[in-house]
Amino acid sequence: MTAVASLAEKVLAGDTGAIGRVLTRIERRAPGVDELVSELQCSAGRAHVIGVTGPPGSGKSTLVGGLTARMREQGRTVGIIAVDPSSAITGGAILGDRIRMSGVAGDPGVFIRSIATRGALGGLSRATLDSIITLDAAGKDVVIVETVGVGQAEVDVMSAAQTVVVVSMPGTGDDVQAIKAGLLEIADVHVVNKFDHPGARKTFAELRTMLRSAPQRPGAWPVPVEKAVGTTGEGVTELVERFAEHREWLVADGGIERWQRRSISTRIRWIAEELVLERLRPGHPEFDRAVEDVLAHRGDSGSLARRLLTQLGNLDGRNPRD
Amino acid sequence: MTAVASLAEKVLAGDTGAIGRVLTRIERRAPGVDELVSELQCSAGRAHVIGVTGPPGSGKSTLVGGLTARMREQGRTVGIIAVDPSSAITGGAILGDRIRMSGVAGDPGVFIRSIATRGALGGLSRATLDSIITLDAAGKDVVIVETVGVGQAEVDVMSAAQTVVVVSMPGTGDDVQAIKAGLLEIADVHVVNKFDHPGARKTFAELRTMLRSAPQRPGAWPVPVEKAVGTTGEGVTELVERFAEHREWLVADGGIERWQRRSISTRIRWIAEELVLERLRPGHPEFDRAVEDVLAHRGDSGSLARRLLTQLGNLDGRNPRD
Repeated sequence: MTAVASLAEKVLAGDTGAIGRVLTRIERRAPGVDELVSELQCSAGRAHVIGVTGPPGSGKSTLVGGLTARMREQGRTVGIIAVDPSSAITGGAILGDRIRMSGVAGDPGVFIRSIATRGALGGLSRATLDSIITLDAAGKDVVIVETVGVGQAEVDVMSAAQTVVVVSMPGTGDDVQAIKAGLLEIADVHVVNKFDHPGARKTFAELRTMLRSAPQRPGAWPVPVEKAVGTTGEGVTELVERFAEHREWLVADGGIERWQRRSISTRIRWIAEELVLERLRPGHPEFDRAVEDVLAHRGDSGSLARRLLTQLGNLDGRNPRD
Repeated sequence: MTAVASLAEKVLAGDTGAIGRVLTRIERRAPGVDELVSELQCSAGRAHVIGVTGPPGSGKSTLVGGLTARMREQGRTVGIIAVDPSSAITGGAILGDRIRMSGVAGDPGVFIRSIATRGALGGLSRATLDSIITLDAAGKDVVIVETVGVGQAEVDVMSAAQTVVVVSMPGTGDDVQAIKAGLLEIADVHVVNKFDHPGARKTFAELRTMLRSAPQRPGAWPVPVEKAVGTTGEGVTELVERFAEHREWLVADGGIERWQRRSISTRIRWIAEELVLERLRPGHPEFDRAVEDVLAHRGDSGSLARRLLTQLGNLDGRNPRD
């Protein structure tokens, strides 16, 4: 436990090497990682978690680079998690590399990490949330979660963000890509990137019309549509302002507390489910003993199931594989 | 608890009305049913559980009627569970009705019940296993599980049987239907029914050749191929003899004990999973309290997840909805 405690302490002190080691453990689902992240979660809850999503080619990585540079000018530290559900093939480093190239590399106030897909989609959401918690606990003022592509996996990943930014680009047809991708419902801020490209004004107008025609609850956040040119930095200052406004609105509306409750609920459930699913199966000593007890009429399946849950609960927090 | 205890006692005494009420509770997943079946499971483990499967039209129900009549002649009591994964449409009574018409109706030594699909396929396997346990605990010497049709659901249901009987019928083509249906691997006894129909000898020969060409472990049960004419009762006596031989082989081989261990393991896991999945979610008082405790830094997600498992384990066995 000493090694884990000291690793957690180093993360809380902002040690870049320690952060990297924890993120590797999270990605690999290393033994004891749940306890480690649970400990870090106690010191998390300050960062503004911003999710950036949108179709491929919309220039997200360049835009994230520009946004990060602007936040650094404001003196804020930034952690970036680049999530690529399809990166089992590419190795997962592409997104992170792209952001690194955009002028924020070498800045000790910026931490960039790519997460590749390992196993199920649920695993990706879990690694994302745990990584956010780690960067938050490490004192990053802003944590940006960027996804490549569009799909259910990306929408799931975005549920870990406080402010969701949907990036569109000038369309070739009549329709806005965000709608096709099912991203319209989750956007807190829309941005039409590559605004210097033909058709940008049309895409912008379409998005605005669409948002205005949607029914709006009283007191709801009025989703803005912004313009940007990622390559020149145009519109980046305004975007960062919108993020800050959304964060303020969330705080006033109780949204940050709801987000924290949701993150905590999710992690408690994941940990409990995993304890049950991994250990309540033939081959684990306590489980096998319970089966023998039922066979020998020393108890019934229901009471033995409950005894096993009690035993799981009374573990001292260490994984037996440690 | 008194009502549940007295219902369990009535089942153990073989009360037909009580058996019916328990099977209804099982099918509806009524509150407290897990505790009830867990209690009954302590008195189960004597019955020979025979699964009968095969393609539609192979005459399974008529054959089951004949087998039941033969077992009754031997003085054994029989419980029949007719499982129809597709019966949400038909209402689920067709199979049971067919068996009832085959001459065993009105005999107090025979209990027949159809199980219709409700919800997921897993729910069907669960209802089947719980129903087997109930009829076993009620003192039935034999429990027959019959399925209609062929598919993964049927194969899953058959995993609850000790002796699996695959019914084939004379084919119109060159191939034996059991192979197409993936039933060859799970058969302990093969029977070519409708042996008075054209092509029966060919189907019989094909099945034999196929079984002989499959690699056989030393000491393994030599899967027999039998002939039957369900409508006349031809071959039924021999089939019942094969079932008894397989049961004897299972006892000597430790297969019955393995089956009991598997049933117990399955139920312990189901109950534990359900306790976790149903109660560890926002809205349940203990869960909400755990989330608040993490928010207030009175503990971390990992230790609170374990506390919740302990609390689930320490429930007094009653469902709060009772």
